[in-house]
Amino acid sequence: MDRRSFLKNSALGGTAAAATTLAAPAYAQGNRTLTMVTSVPDGFAVFDDAAVNFAENVNAMSGGELTIEKKAAGQLVGAFEVFDAVSSGQADMYHSADYYFGGQHPGLYFFTAVPFGATGGEMASWYYHGGGKELHHEVGEIFGLKSFICGNTGHQPGGWFNKEINTAADLQGLKFRMPGLGGLALGRTGASVQNVPGGEIYQALASGAIDGAEWIGPFADERLGFQEICEFYYTGGMHEPGSALTCGVNLDVFNELSPAHQAIIETAAAATHQWSLSQSNYNNGAALERLKAQGVKVLEFSDEIWDAFGTAAAEALDEFMDDELFARIRASQEAAVAATYAWTSVSDGVYTAQRGRVRAG
Amino acid sequence: MDRRSFLKNSALGGTAAAATTLAAPAYAQGNRTLTMVTSVPDGFAVFDDAAVNFAENVNAMSGGELTIEKKAAGQLVGAFEVFDAVSSGQADMYHSADYYFGGQHPGLYFFTAVPFGATGGEMASWYYHGGGKELHHEVGEIFGLKSFICGNTGHQPGGWFNKEINTAADLQGLKFRMPGLGGLALGRTGASVQNVPGGEIYQALASGAIDGAEWIGPFADERLGFQEICEFYYTGGMHEPGSALTCGVNLDVFNELSPAHQAIIETAAAATHQWSLSQSNYNNGAALERLKAQGVKVLEFSDEIWDAFGTAAAEALDEFMDDELFARIRASQEAAVAATYAWTSVSDGVYTAQRGRVRAG
Repeated sequence: MDRRSFLKNSALGGTAAAATTLAAPAYAQGNRTLTMVTSVPDGFAVFDDAAVNFAENVNAMSGGELTIEKKAAGQLVGAFEVFDAVSSGQADMYHSADYYFGGQHPGLYFFTAVPFGATGGEMASWYYHGGGKELHHEVGEIFGLKSFICGNTGHQPGGWFNKEINTAADLQGLKFRMPGLGGLALGRTGASVQNVPGGEIYQALASGAIDGAEWIGPFADERLGFQEICEFYYTGGMHEPGSALTCGVNLDVFNELSPAHQAIIETAAAATHQWSLSQSNYNNGAALERLKAQGVKVLEFSDEIWDAFGTAAAEALDEFMDDELFARIRASQEAAVAATYAWTSVSDGVYTAQRGRVRAG
Repeated sequence: MDRRSFLKNSALGGTAAAATTLAAPAYAQGNRTLTMVTSVPDGFAVFDDAAVNFAENVNAMSGGELTIEKKAAGQLVGAFEVFDAVSSGQADMYHSADYYFGGQHPGLYFFTAVPFGATGGEMASWYYHGGGKELHHEVGEIFGLKSFICGNTGHQPGGWFNKEINTAADLQGLKFRMPGLGGLALGRTGASVQNVPGGEIYQALASGAIDGAEWIGPFADERLGFQEICEFYYTGGMHEPGSALTCGVNLDVFNELSPAHQAIIETAAAATHQWSLSQSNYNNGAALERLKAQGVKVLEFSDEIWDAFGTAAAEALDEFMDDELFARIRASQEAAVAATYAWTSVSDGVYTAQRGRVRAG
């Protein structure tokens, strides 16, 4: 039974109905509380920050007519149960990363990140101008959702290791936390890949259940204390070049909202995408310096490892090409990334290289 | 006399007051039309697109309570008169590029772009996380404005030339359109720099009044037809690495709005910054290919020219360092750019290089 059926048929439902009658003028003005379940604990840097930023903007812009009540992972449902909970109507909306739900539909991987895919800026190009948003709605509709990207971690580093990774052979048998299609790709290099919710990674590392992990980036990772356990940190990574977070709203709930409230949710989510991406980009450099000062060795993967990643990523993506919608989403995102990089490489790329050269000179 | 004084003291004002009394229920619900003056003609790619996107989002989110009535350049006031018009209360708000108003205060240059300054993504880092927004409000307050960045053209190319620019000496005496601090820097290389509103550049080029010009980027420039006049297009440029557009609201008008309407304007402006930046980044590459197909020669400046730009830009910036607020804004933006690039260079930079190498292999 979903939550709304429960309310309709229970004593609590009766009480709620009475309260609604008493508060009729408030309801007539459209006041509404939306329950938003999330996949991380309260206060988790970057991930929860985006959820808070989004909720605050919705609350402020609606003048209190919409109040988002955020539920941390495990409070109402588990970290990875939020998608099903909103799809079934148990909660009104979720804030999470859609690649956690690639098992429900592989097209969802593209709305967080895929290996060798879009950077944060390229994600915005695709989503707002290259058809990404419409495809997000199309895959969401299968599950009774209206989904919007709502946060972006920026580039996620290769991750934390307890030994140096000098060749692709060093990945063999490594128990490593990595979700999504990146994880499926890493598994093809011989690593033993596991998915662990953000709130449980530290313990998994500390207990030796896993040998290494990637989470978000220096600013978020530092808060979780991975530097206390792992000595080696690889900054460049293939698996999540710019991971979007998603706000998915139960479609019936969304359709019952006024057009103005629908617009508020959509625009707040877009603003949070930018706010969140720039939060990581602003803070990660200084956090990386602090990690170095604590003794972390910051390294980059060799070309040979990147080549192995490339082969594994292509294989992992091709595995799903029988799914028509997956193939269509992939083609759309890859075209948008290529179109965008054709410009940014000769503009921002040339410029930042010259800026560095001129200033060093 | 400003517009509101005029309304209070004129026959028209009497009529307006009567109409307000008659329409009291609508006014009680907060319905309000805000006049927004702009610096470009209607339909100008990128620049006007951002103004339209912003106005549509405000209208939609407010459920019609706020209606932005956009006025093209010249319709109410001239392209470069919008700042004074809003400061004085002649119009409610403007959408423009704040560096046009560097003569009013040099600190305004930083809220569009300065030579060797922030890219579009770095601008978002600074504005939303590094104190940029607060400084924008501080300089705005001097002129009775509440200002928000509201659009971004992305990297602006070096521009259109009627001859190849092989050495810095080739810039001598060149009559070139370039506004802002970039223009002041270019002037120090020996070029004869002029500012011309966007709607008048084509005619200035066609008449020979100027030898060359920069405007926005391939997607916007193509629409204006500069390729019909100039044969050479330099993609990398020093002058505007990511030009933000601004929505500046008369401070009295802003303070009279409800907190919800204030939040709608602020969040809509932020969403437009991202929407606009990604619009240019998505479309410029394909537009550049079309320009090449029309015979335009796409080139890059030599290191020697970039070095000359570097010297000129530093001198142009230093010229204003006696102004305490200018110096404070500069220090703040430069620190945020350095912090951001310290991360993006080892994350996005390493990643996009490896992505290109692996795919080419």
